[in-house]
Amino acid sequence: MTELCLNIENLTHAYRVGTLTPIKVIYQIYQRIEEYGDNPIWITLLDRAIVLRSLEELEERVRIRGLEALPLYGIPFAVKDNIDVANLPTTAGCPAYTYQASQHATVVEKLLDAGAILIGKTSLDQFATGLVGTRSPWGACRNAFNSEYISGGSSSGSAVAVAKGFVSFALGTDTAGSGRVPAAFNNIVGLKPTKGLLSTFGVVPASRSLDCVSVFALNCEDARRIFEITQGFDSQDSYSRPFPIESSKVLPKKGFRFGVPKLEQLEFFGDREASQLFEQSIRNLESLSGQPVEIDFAPFREVAQSLYSGAWIVERYSGLKEFVASHPDDVLPVIKQILSLAEKFSAADVFETLQNLQALKQRTHKEWEKMDILLLPTTGTIYKIAEVEAEPIQLNSNLGYYTNFVNLLDLCAIALPAGFRKQEFNYGLPFGITLIAPPFKDIDLCEIGTVYEQAFGDKLGRE
Amino acid sequence: MTELCLNIENLTHAYRVGTLTPIKVIYQIYQRIEEYGDNPIWITLLDRAIVLRSLEELEERVRIRGLEALPLYGIPFAVKDNIDVANLPTTAGCPAYTYQASQHATVVEKLLDAGAILIGKTSLDQFATGLVGTRSPWGACRNAFNSEYISGGSSSGSAVAVAKGFVSFALGTDTAGSGRVPAAFNNIVGLKPTKGLLSTFGVVPASRSLDCVSVFALNCEDARRIFEITQGFDSQDSYSRPFPIESSKVLPKKGFRFGVPKLEQLEFFGDREASQLFEQSIRNLESLSGQPVEIDFAPFREVAQSLYSGAWIVERYSGLKEFVASHPDDVLPVIKQILSLAEKFSAADVFETLQNLQALKQRTHKEWEKMDILLLPTTGTIYKIAEVEAEPIQLNSNLGYYTNFVNLLDLCAIALPAGFRKQEFNYGLPFGITLIAPPFKDIDLCEIGTVYEQAFGDKLGRE
Repeated sequence: MTELCLNIENLTHAYRVGTLTPIKVIYQIYQRIEEYGDNPIWITLLDRAIVLRSLEELEERVRIRGLEALPLYGIPFAVKDNIDVANLPTTAGCPAYTYQASQHATVVEKLLDAGAILIGKTSLDQFATGLVGTRSPWGACRNAFNSEYISGGSSSGSAVAVAKGFVSFALGTDTAGSGRVPAAFNNIVGLKPTKGLLSTFGVVPASRSLDCVSVFALNCEDARRIFEITQGFDSQDSYSRPFPIESSKVLPKKGFRFGVPKLEQLEFFGDREASQLFEQSIRNLESLSGQPVEIDFAPFREVAQSLYSGAWIVERYSGLKEFVASHPDDVLPVIKQILSLAEKFSAADVFETLQNLQALKQRTHKEWEKMDILLLPTTGTIYKIAEVEAEPIQLNSNLGYYTNFVNLLDLCAIALPAGFRKQEFNYGLPFGITLIAPPFKDIDLCEIGTVYEQAFGDKLGRE
Repeated sequence: MTELCLNIENLTHAYRVGTLTPIKVIYQIYQRIEEYGDNPIWITLLDRAIVLRSLEELEERVRIRGLEALPLYGIPFAVKDNIDVANLPTTAGCPAYTYQASQHATVVEKLLDAGAILIGKTSLDQFATGLVGTRSPWGACRNAFNSEYISGGSSSGSAVAVAKGFVSFALGTDTAGSGRVPAAFNNIVGLKPTKGLLSTFGVVPASRSLDCVSVFALNCEDARRIFEITQGFDSQDSYSRPFPIESSKVLPKKGFRFGVPKLEQLEFFGDREASQLFEQSIRNLESLSGQPVEIDFAPFREVAQSLYSGAWIVERYSGLKEFVASHPDDVLPVIKQILSLAEKFSAADVFETLQNLQALKQRTHKEWEKMDILLLPTTGTIYKIAEVEAEPIQLNSNLGYYTNFVNLLDLCAIALPAGFRKQEFNYGLPFGITLIAPPFKDIDLCEIGTVYEQAFGDKLGRE
């Protein structure tokens, strides 16, 4: 049982042939969690007894509706703690902000309907503001491979829970990279779907017009399943969009063109081995009949920078302004510092930011004419918790180098494991790549990702 | 010659068979202009001698490239004076703002390339801010049918120039209705294309993210020709979008569904005959095999209201702020009053406005599921110049009741003549309807409009 891998196909197969039951899996999971020790992955971990009771209800549903109606029968999952689960607290990483959710977020509802088993709610950078996983009153979430290192964030606990084999998949959110950076740092898959395809109803807003629910999984096929089950137009989310089926699966299976930034536009912050691993991923994609194309990364970078230099922070702040004002001591200083940047922007600045984005977006369209997908490192490097605590703003910002622009440009993305560092610097830590595509190409990305991981993925998640 | 109708088919045919030449047409036009008398339609009317010289150049191009390369050979047109024509002043309706344009706006360039003949540049509500045509230091532009009445605006001169038979077509701009209201008031066609299809490069910004170049014409077929010649992606305009051919001509020719607001949501501001004419237009569309569908107009109205209650005015103001500050006495008081509303909005208000728009937009999507096009009065009523001068803000606002939401919701629209008032109130003034459709359905609208005018259009433009 110690080698039990929780990927969905595995579990579903084992349940079908009777070598496993959901009850056995739940016992195994709670044993793992107990053995793991002190890492603040969970904000709310359900009692095992409660989870076992939910399994009884599940069996009742199997009797009534049949197993076919429950495509995620007995699949354990976790939810980032800025997403509502009925009758559980939603903290958004801030104890004073906590409220008891009266109903499930739409995505949670869909997963439970499909037979998935909720284990708990996971830690995050406070108000989903960060890419590090250290910005939490519950303490810094530690990397699954080396506890001196950051887990990445803001969906820190969700990523580590998947990597450590506590759940088969987990929901995160991703406004600026929060669903990709922790995937890379913990050697799992992170799907950041096209904006609006997964409802954000029941999700604490970060930057309302940019927020996405994201999926952490052990492989791309699992990410795709969860995407397909959770997507769907939801009139309760004003940014919800229907998934146009005709837009999916249009990429050539052979000979797709993948963009790579000019060499001088790549930035690894001194992490030479990360640079080598990225080079290797280019050769890997080439060997899968991809055609590399050099593109100009400059307009993408300028968009990324505008996320913090432009007026976007105002949108993030506007939802929290009253809370921060009335609870000044309950918000982490680093979060207050970031949010306070909002105060310098005027109404005219916002329109200027939007117009600049439009101009940059058009420049990126030229680059998209040359490529079907864009290949990037998920991050240039990784940091130790102590390093981030010494320089919390700049190092966090470095981690967004390749992620911040994606939602602003209405793109979708999948973060994939792409090898481990074996030299002294950041020894043993995983490296990740991200494949990025125009909106509604989510399934294409999952399919290319599956081909990639079947060819090159040695080990995912747990060491 | 006095009955010469300038529609494009007419002129092109007459040129081809030799019953007319561009020179004869120009002489006739200038005679009409001279006879017409005192109405500030023109800000820059080209000297006849200059136009005649441009005809010589045109003949030279015919010799070199052939007539086939000049689909608008010898077709006279006018341009609203917030659109650049090289070597002519652009005033935007404000003498102190005037600059000499160094190059043509993209749309002007395309028209001249196609062989069209520029006659002059037309008056407008200052900075294209208004739907009345009275807000001009050149004086109020008068209605083509009754000089006591307003021409509508902001593209006032362009509409009257077409209606009076001075040009075959004219360019306007349309941010909130400026290309439709004056079409209705002067009994001509006004096409407000989908945002981004006609480049706004070389156009003085009003509200940059909403601005459109629009087309005034004597019939829908002409509007379509001008649309097809002037549309096209332009990287100089960051809001430019390519026209997806597959999106055009998808409406059913028979049995299209047209939405009509619930009776209690219609507003004619006491103009009973306008209400009757609108009723008639519903029956007319029905007789063309359209199926009327009652829709909820409330979310469209709320969007319309948000154009002035929300933070959009900030975008309009931001481009002019410095000019207004440095030239306080050179801007009309009513324009200053409107722009000053921008000052009360914060950066957070802008995001709130955008988020509200998104929520309302989604509510309108439900209504679009019921209909292929939306039928509305272009305006509920019309006013005398004296009435507008007495109550300049409120009456202007009334005129946007059915127009203000169109660009905010990314729709296209065509304003069509729909009969004349014959009773005492507003006697002899034309009434207009507008057909509205989702983006990229511009050609569909022109086609339905053509069917409508062939069935019901008695007289267009000049009495």
